[in-house]
Amino acid sequence: MTETPHTPEDHYTPESLKEAHELIVPYIHRTPVMQSRQLNELAGAELFFKAENFQRGGSYKIRGATHALIRLRQSRDAGGVVTHSSGNFAQALSLAARSLGMQAHIVMPENAPKVKREAVSSYGGQVVLCAPTLEAREAEAARIERETGAAFIHPSNDPMVLLGQGTACLELLETHPELDRVVAPVGGGGLLAGTSLACAFFGRDCEPVGAEPLAVDDAYRSLKSGRIEKNESTDTVADGLRTVLGNHTFPVLQRHVRTIIRVEEDEIIRAMRLVWERMKLVVEPSSAVALAAVLRDPGLFRGTRTGIVISGGNVDLDNLPFSR
Amino acid sequence: MTETPHTPEDHYTPESLKEAHELIVPYIHRTPVMQSRQLNELAGAELFFKAENFQRGGSYKIRGATHALIRLRQSRDAGGVVTHSSGNFAQALSLAARSLGMQAHIVMPENAPKVKREAVSSYGGQVVLCAPTLEAREAEAARIERETGAAFIHPSNDPMVLLGQGTACLELLETHPELDRVVAPVGGGGLLAGTSLACAFFGRDCEPVGAEPLAVDDAYRSLKSGRIEKNESTDTVADGLRTVLGNHTFPVLQRHVRTIIRVEEDEIIRAMRLVWERMKLVVEPSSAVALAAVLRDPGLFRGTRTGIVISGGNVDLDNLPFSR
Repeated sequence: MTETPHTPEDHYTPESLKEAHELIVPYIHRTPVMQSRQLNELAGAELFFKAENFQRGGSYKIRGATHALIRLRQSRDAGGVVTHSSGNFAQALSLAARSLGMQAHIVMPENAPKVKREAVSSYGGQVVLCAPTLEAREAEAARIERETGAAFIHPSNDPMVLLGQGTACLELLETHPELDRVVAPVGGGGLLAGTSLACAFFGRDCEPVGAEPLAVDDAYRSLKSGRIEKNESTDTVADGLRTVLGNHTFPVLQRHVRTIIRVEEDEIIRAMRLVWERMKLVVEPSSAVALAAVLRDPGLFRGTRTGIVISGGNVDLDNLPFSR
Repeated sequence: MTETPHTPEDHYTPESLKEAHELIVPYIHRTPVMQSRQLNELAGAELFFKAENFQRGGSYKIRGATHALIRLRQSRDAGGVVTHSSGNFAQALSLAARSLGMQAHIVMPENAPKVKREAVSSYGGQVVLCAPTLEAREAEAARIERETGAAFIHPSNDPMVLLGQGTACLELLETHPELDRVVAPVGGGGLLAGTSLACAFFGRDCEPVGAEPLAVDDAYRSLKSGRIEKNESTDTVADGLRTVLGNHTFPVLQRHVRTIIRVEEDEIIRAMRLVWERMKLVVEPSSAVALAAVLRDPGLFRGTRTGIVISGGNVDLDNLPFSR
């Protein structure tokens, strides 16, 4: 093991991505790559689904969380960590911290669903509720940092987190080095940034493609304008993609990603239904965004071998978009 | 390849089961065996799920259908086959027949859901509608046999079908020979009969266990009484298990199966929800019956290594039992 690198450029090398993978392997599942003849026919392409819905905690987020915690432990004596999330990163950080014998404090809005709070608790995370505003959650996280000495870990905008997320695509390219494209959904940008690095380092002319709901197309607009754009609303079924890029994820996307495909809400729901019905996989709406992008823009994918990162499978079975 | 055996006893040997497997391997998927740490903890046992929901056509039924068609082709010149089913066997026989260059006629009640008729058609099966009574469907199947020379294949009560169904457990025991129990749902009894043969031939003291909805517990009562019992109603969410045993499946169960566990409707729905939420697998209610049995009778399973045959994943996403 080496010390944590000190400049951002150092972080992003083939070696640092490989090392991230070696560090986290004892703590994660090597998820399978699934195929579907029916979806291949529909897309006119050969599709390879990296099934991170089978990952520990139900999403790829455990990869980045584990990597960040291991790096943190290498660099300083932190007994605890803190983040603010009501989504998959909350569960992932709790689980990763427990595996590494650390305490995770998870700041959640007081209106977060009970099922999500219970999931964090069941993984050993300490839930701290706050008012449902950005200011309140940042203040609460800062208080916990100050009072407990816990280190703050951002769910996506962190070099160590995004390197960890890139290991899903690294595994995919290890077994399928011939892929022409890899499609990943983009919210905060951690997964797409890591994926784009894996493509650059380990692909053979493999193009990373982002997939984003039209309703929250901040990443698409950010790449156009050259600065980090916000969203006016967060009204999408893909609840994991409502966040925006940050100062760590955006430059990686600027450098490595040329294409982001935006999809409509009904396309997301249709793609989700296809994966459930044809592949028998429980995937969350945010995951379906990647397949929706492939089906929306067939010209870009026809005849290719395309990887799709199925980012997670944490859904509320009592509120499915197609069960009405 | 050998000729079709001529007496029932001949059918059921380790060699005949192995040969069934060799014959169908080119036409089926080798489905994965999945595990869940959370469900292991809940059951107090190590569980191995044979994921036939990933099988071609969405269920194990393709195994028996393919085996029956290959044996038929060996024994006589049959251009077509006919069955009556509105469930998974209808799709399986259509798909198997297409793979083998044969025509499948599927007799379905005229009130069968459109989605099921379309699934059969999409696999190349010829749908023939009839009145929704037992008499009407038998008369219609007989007419097709007579007029087209097609051979009738029963969905479960057929030695070649039940041998084919046993190949799922054969595969499971190939990779996990140490299993103490294998649990399979029982409806017509084809899957449980084949599973019990696989346990007897290839297990090391491995006990086959049947799992049945209490609402349609004909198999449980049949084993008690020593004759084939009927059901008074078919009111269960496990729509694949509403059928009853036949003269081929019943003797095999009598010889090899000592235990059938009956489960309540709410236990089935809870088990189904657990598999969806914790394992991220789309499984149908009939499949969940096996896990429900393990959770209902922990004394029988605690500390064991137990296989569970996940029979299929064909569900109507617009009518899920827990989305209310």
